Amino acid sequence: MVAIPPVVLMTDMGASDWYVGVMKAVVNSLSPETPLLDLCHHVRRQNVADGAFILHVAYGYYPAGTIFLAVVDPQVGSERRALAATDGRFFYVGPDNGLFSYVMEGTENWRAHSLENPALALPLPSSTFHGRDLFAPAAGHLARGVALEDFGPAITNAISLGPVNPSPREANSLEGRVLYIDHFGNLITNISRNDLPGDLAGEKITARVKKHEIQGVAPHYAAVPQNHPLLYWGSTGMLEIAVNYGSAARKWDIGRDERVEVRW
Amino acid sequence: MVAIPPVVLMTDMGASDWYVGVMKAVVNSLSPETPLLDLCHHVRRQNVADGAFILHVAYGYYPAGTIFLAVVDPQVGSERRALAATDGRFFYVGPDNGLFSYVMEGTENWRAHSLENPALALPLPSSTFHGRDLFAPAAGHLARGVALEDFGPAITNAISLGPVNPSPREANSLEGRVLYIDHFGNLITNISRNDLPGDLAGEKITARVKKHEIQGVAPHYAAVPQNHPLLYWGSTGMLEIAVNYGSAARKWDIGRDERVEVRW
Amino acid sequence: MVAIPPVVLMTDMGASDWYVGVMKAVVNSLSPETPLLDLCHHVRRQNVADGAFILHVAYGYYPAGTIFLAVVDPQVGSERRALAATDGRFFYVGPDNGLFSYVMEGTENWRAHSLENPALALPLPSSTFHGRDLFAPAAGHLARGVALEDFGPAITNAISLGPVNPSPREANSLEGRVLYIDHFGNLITNISRNDLPGDLAGEKITARVKKHEIQGVAPHYAAVPQNHPLLYWGSTGMLEIAVNYGSAARKWDIGRDERVEVRW
Repeated sequence: MVAIPPVVLMTDMGASDWYVGVMKAVVNSLSPETPLLDLCHHVRRQNVADGAFILHVAYGYYPAGTIFLAVVDPQVGSERRALAATDGRFFYVGPDNGLFSYVMEGTENWRAHSLENPALALPLPSSTFHGRDLFAPAAGHLARGVALEDFGPAITNAISLGPVNPSPREANSLEGRVLYIDHFGNLITNISRNDLPGDLAGEKITARVKKHEIQGVAPHYAAVPQNHPLLYWGSTGMLEIAVNYGSAARKWDIGRDERVEVRW
Repeated sequence: MVAIPPVVLMTDMGASDWYVGVMKAVVNSLSPETPLLDLCHHVRRQNVADGAFILHVAYGYYPAGTIFLAVVDPQVGSERRALAATDGRFFYVGPDNGLFSYVMEGTENWRAHSLENPALALPLPSSTFHGRDLFAPAAGHLARGVALEDFGPAITNAISLGPVNPSPREANSLEGRVLYIDHFGNLITNISRNDLPGDLAGEKITARVKKHEIQGVAPHYAAVPQNHPLLYWGSTGMLEIAVNYGSAARKWDIGRDERVEVRW
Repeated sequence: MVAIPPVVLMTDMGASDWYVGVMKAVVNSLSPETPLLDLCHHVRRQNVADGAFILHVAYGYYPAGTIFLAVVDPQVGSERRALAATDGRFFYVGPDNGLFSYVMEGTENWRAHSLENPALALPLPSSTFHGRDLFAPAAGHLARGVALEDFGPAITNAISLGPVNPSPREANSLEGRVLYIDHFGNLITNISRNDLPGDLAGEKITARVKKHEIQGVAPHYAAVPQNHPLLYWGSTGMLEIAVNYGSAARKWDIGRDERVEVRW
């Protein structure tokens, strides 16, 4: 039996309405055997950069052939383009607004087509819910084997957001920021291993957020006492700040985009 | 390979407990090949009308043969009846309390049976969780091909809620209300296209909620500047009020059932 | 067609991040035909006892062969062991920290192996997300038919939490506590039918929480007027306190671990 790759949904629509459910209904109607998996529906509302980051840290774990149905689409219904694309390994469907920036950067095989074929959308698309009327049908048709070319003309200038990298401050220091705060209140920064010297020992690194300073990179949460803060390389490859058995965000009242200074 | 229609769950049980998980366990035990899809588990607690509305705006997007397992059931364990039904296209399982009002209105082929056969329920049903003990087994057995007749006697007088339509106020005006507030803070009213004259131009319509007046129907969110309000025909066919890149509910502190006046 | 048992996920990771999505990606990559079901992702953060309770009240409803992928793992990356186990009916994958206490108690066939085979984990495991790097691969390999023995040496002294039973106070009374508060604000206590005399009539039981006393066990919610409290045997077999069409937790401002006194 040949495995059928999943359609994976990522949106800013939350879990409390019927929106995500109806998108799945449309995909399931077109391609009933295709597994439907949720990546995340709590991208910050209308925040394309947030969605681009989440897609970036997750997509590599899916099987080849996976179709990402990604909708963070504040300009739905306007002139913004809609696309179906591939990097040679996965497929992507969503608005052309930068949501695929970081997956595009990771490949030289990016190939995108504009969604302009009305036969591959719902009959009377709304102008506010293309997730249901345009993108879910495209994902369902892709899952059925429709070729990218059939959706519309090629797009060679898909929109890409700028990089998220931190700024160098002076010799041996960087200024980054809190990119994401997770369910545990862990602070995920925009500082990756590549932003620091390759041979730098973890104990030489100090991070500062608000007035709080943490010295040295810990190997795991339990390496510090309960309710103590720690600095560590997180599971996305970014530098993170947490509180063992607690919430760094709540303990220090920190929100997204808070400044994080790192020196060594 | 013949496609297996899904069992689609809609409840007011939220996502934080094990209740929905266990309902899926029961369906999966009876019919392991049946896909399980979530429509929505955030129907307002014990609010049957809310559930009836959500089912109504979503059900048409599912494939023929879909079994809707819908549980908003404040009178669980009392004398209220339980039913399995069909409209000739889909199947429905849930309490007989009005939850299926609007899907019933949409068909002349409604046929319902009372769930009274103990062989098609769990052995020792609780009196507070028929979702697990009565309705999930019924959905699982329907998915396996059990006939409606096998569940119990026919019900010809299933309970139906009244219509949700707005009241005419005077010539060229209506008084409606906010029926639903979604994840984005968009206000979905109970006013549909059919409640207004068929030839009415969008720019002639004015809506008023609290002290705020919005003039003219916009084609999509991006047609107004950021943080500005707009009036538009939403994806469910109802008139909606939103704030571009914002939340109308939060901006104006509006809750459900708030009065909405429309004139033209 | 032989049914494929599901992998069932239970975590404290919430629903707003990509963590659960990525765990599913890993399982799906290894075993694409295996259904993925969510039991619950709102176990209280880092609260192993809470997870053990939820698993306990739910696991019996799943089909034989189900693989429970359970991750509440505050000591991830430290010396705590990781395990794959079976009770002869189901499989379990997760940290060895007591999460499987109550399922272990229910069987004499418990057999566990330590997860130490790097060929059955992701290549470069992080030290903070074994859900993705160690446990999801183990669940995926189990679903593919890998034997328990292949993961590592047997563990015969898996960690078990103490029992949750209430304390007897004096003749004809018990002191228990609120073990869990659900989405409806119902208070689930740690007092089960077995903690009370077998022949005790429901109307003889009185419960007291804070200053509020409820006399007699009701058959279902609708047996009392709206907004009135009731005492009843809940769907998990535990004594519960609810408010008909309301929230007991909110009405009386009650949190977890609140003392509940029962006498008869």
